[in-house]
Amino acid sequence: MKNYVFTPGPVAVPSEVLLEMAKPIIHHRTKEFEAIFAEVREGLKYIFDTKEEVFVLAASGTGAMEAAVVNTLSPGDKVLVIDGGKFGERWGKIARAYGLETAELKVEWGYSADPAEVEKILDADPSIKAVLFQASETSTGVLHPTKEIAAITRKRDGVISIVDGITGVGVFPIEFDEWGVDVLVGGSQKAFMLPPGLSFIALSKKAWKFYESSKLPKFYFDLKPALKNAEKNTTPYTPAVTLIIGLAAVLRRFRAEGREAMHKRHEKLALAMREAMKAIELEPYVKSVPSPALTTVIAPPEIGSSKVIKALASDFGITVADGQDQAKGVIFRISHIGDIDVTDTITGVAAIESVLNGLGYKFNFGAATKKASEILSAK
Amino acid sequence: MKNYVFTPGPVAVPSEVLLEMAKPIIHHRTKEFEAIFAEVREGLKYIFDTKEEVFVLAASGTGAMEAAVVNTLSPGDKVLVIDGGKFGERWGKIARAYGLETAELKVEWGYSADPAEVEKILDADPSIKAVLFQASETSTGVLHPTKEIAAITRKRDGVISIVDGITGVGVFPIEFDEWGVDVLVGGSQKAFMLPPGLSFIALSKKAWKFYESSKLPKFYFDLKPALKNAEKNTTPYTPAVTLIIGLAAVLRRFRAEGREAMHKRHEKLALAMREAMKAIELEPYVKSVPSPALTTVIAPPEIGSSKVIKALASDFGITVADGQDQAKGVIFRISHIGDIDVTDTITGVAAIESVLNGLGYKFNFGAATKKASEILSAK
Repeated sequence: MKNYVFTPGPVAVPSEVLLEMAKPIIHHRTKEFEAIFAEVREGLKYIFDTKEEVFVLAASGTGAMEAAVVNTLSPGDKVLVIDGGKFGERWGKIARAYGLETAELKVEWGYSADPAEVEKILDADPSIKAVLFQASETSTGVLHPTKEIAAITRKRDGVISIVDGITGVGVFPIEFDEWGVDVLVGGSQKAFMLPPGLSFIALSKKAWKFYESSKLPKFYFDLKPALKNAEKNTTPYTPAVTLIIGLAAVLRRFRAEGREAMHKRHEKLALAMREAMKAIELEPYVKSVPSPALTTVIAPPEIGSSKVIKALASDFGITVADGQDQAKGVIFRISHIGDIDVTDTITGVAAIESVLNGLGYKFNFGAATKKASEILSAK
Repeated sequence: MKNYVFTPGPVAVPSEVLLEMAKPIIHHRTKEFEAIFAEVREGLKYIFDTKEEVFVLAASGTGAMEAAVVNTLSPGDKVLVIDGGKFGERWGKIARAYGLETAELKVEWGYSADPAEVEKILDADPSIKAVLFQASETSTGVLHPTKEIAAITRKRDGVISIVDGITGVGVFPIEFDEWGVDVLVGGSQKAFMLPPGLSFIALSKKAWKFYESSKLPKFYFDLKPALKNAEKNTTPYTPAVTLIIGLAAVLRRFRAEGREAMHKRHEKLALAMREAMKAIELEPYVKSVPSPALTTVIAPPEIGSSKVIKALASDFGITVADGQDQAKGVIFRISHIGDIDVTDTITGVAAIESVLNGLGYKFNFGAATKKASEILSAK
């Protein structure tokens, strides 16, 4: 059976990229690798929409989230965490593990944060040094308003925005320089269509000022040595050579496709999936702005999501993700990132219909696939 | 031209392992991945020679070195660092970055540490909580006496041994449980024949006691959540899936070869290289016990090592490493780890002879290759 990965990371890796990474390994202290790394640095700046350096860490996304905190803050600093899901919660855990004080803006799962609330909290408490949030909260499928929140923090000299863009960067527009985002984190196993093991982080000039006064301990994730090394097209510690070679390959592909076309691709696949699910009366989990990275759908309550997920795997070789924590068994999550195209998405929709029918859900069988086809075939 | 990687990490990766990693990716929250991870956990315990859990981190070796420190110690703790090369120096840098006080046992480059000196320092200063050193110091090619140092720390309730075994584990015997090593770190791009991007760490029961009182901040490298997850054959954060699939493949190969046979393989290749270099009157850089992971050779001073290294690359497609810091331009370093066998080693020796001859070195041309062949063909 063919294998379809519709999970919001890991994602399907293009086979030409897998084969690129399967070539005999090269050493990282060579002209050959330096040339690849120079190309990667330029490509990442293009995708991150910035003139600043974008660092490549041998770590998964959580490592880069930790790097965001330890490179900008000091023990006892107070930060505002927007917690509207599993990954918002993680910002809080990282901050507290490093002895930061956290104020929390709790957002109900399935809803986007309200920038006005952020502003109110910052106005009321000038001791807050940073606002930490997700551009796209993968546990709920919600988009938080990055542009609006960055507009609030950029007005304040003493506050930076720290954005988890792990399922955001490359998926939809996050204009790092233009919007005044201060720290932005990405991950290889998302829009970058690579296996997990690499993460990315960019710092604004304002964030580098925070670095200078930051007193949190750091070594492996210290970005100052990484900056000095990046300027010589290398890394302070052994880089994940094969993944970086894969990264160079996908970045070449992205250049050819174009940043805006990438965003449109995700938007179109997401729209088709959302509308298809609505066409068979499945309720979206997102009550405000949905992320183009993934669609979160409430399974028919009499069936539950776990059975749907299991049947997709056994009958069609399709992996989608269950909900996490409070959403476990309630929703299923289908991603639109990675090496997934129009035909895969129609396949996914048709499989969901078939599985729901098999599980006894009463609906207009075929309506979802028709809706997806209509949207995906539109020019 | 064929490409030979004779560097002490990255190393040559077997092509069947590269192809295994090039298969379509699977998600890490699946039964399929859990089965692979269960196999990896067992295989790592076998290579680490321990019943304790061996953790797999998505990070290069330096990340696992940092994990060793932050999981066992507290701010202000005093530690003894054995500094006899670039990586010993790194232990000191990590410790100080985390606010530890460091006592240093400086060892001249090219020499092994003397356990009697370690004992003297610990006797004189009972406030020292840990001894940090390299099993094999890759910058100099020296073996430090792990067994003897562990014997000293295990006698003391308040002191643990923290061993960088990045170019040690799987290369030569480090009997974790038997010798009473407390923390041992390994890396994928060494004896494990994988690309860089994974590192490994094991903790003794004594080290876990240190964990309980440790106050250094940690999140990504916190091993307690990793332990809870490992018991369920998973990891707390997204693992580097493809590298772990490669790891399962090499561990199967190592089981078939046998741990002792692996050690003998490295020992034999190293002996052949060392004796071959002596046969053409090149001076070994190591004045005490050489590591079987790599051979460090002083290039003819009138030529210098950089020219030798450059010619090996351009004429033979062979990458060997230059010295680091004070040894740069003075020595070259040839590794015996990774997917390198008898024929590769003879090729390497013959190439070195050819290059030295071309650079005007006067010697008994052919003597090195003959010596290597004799040793390598011995049963």
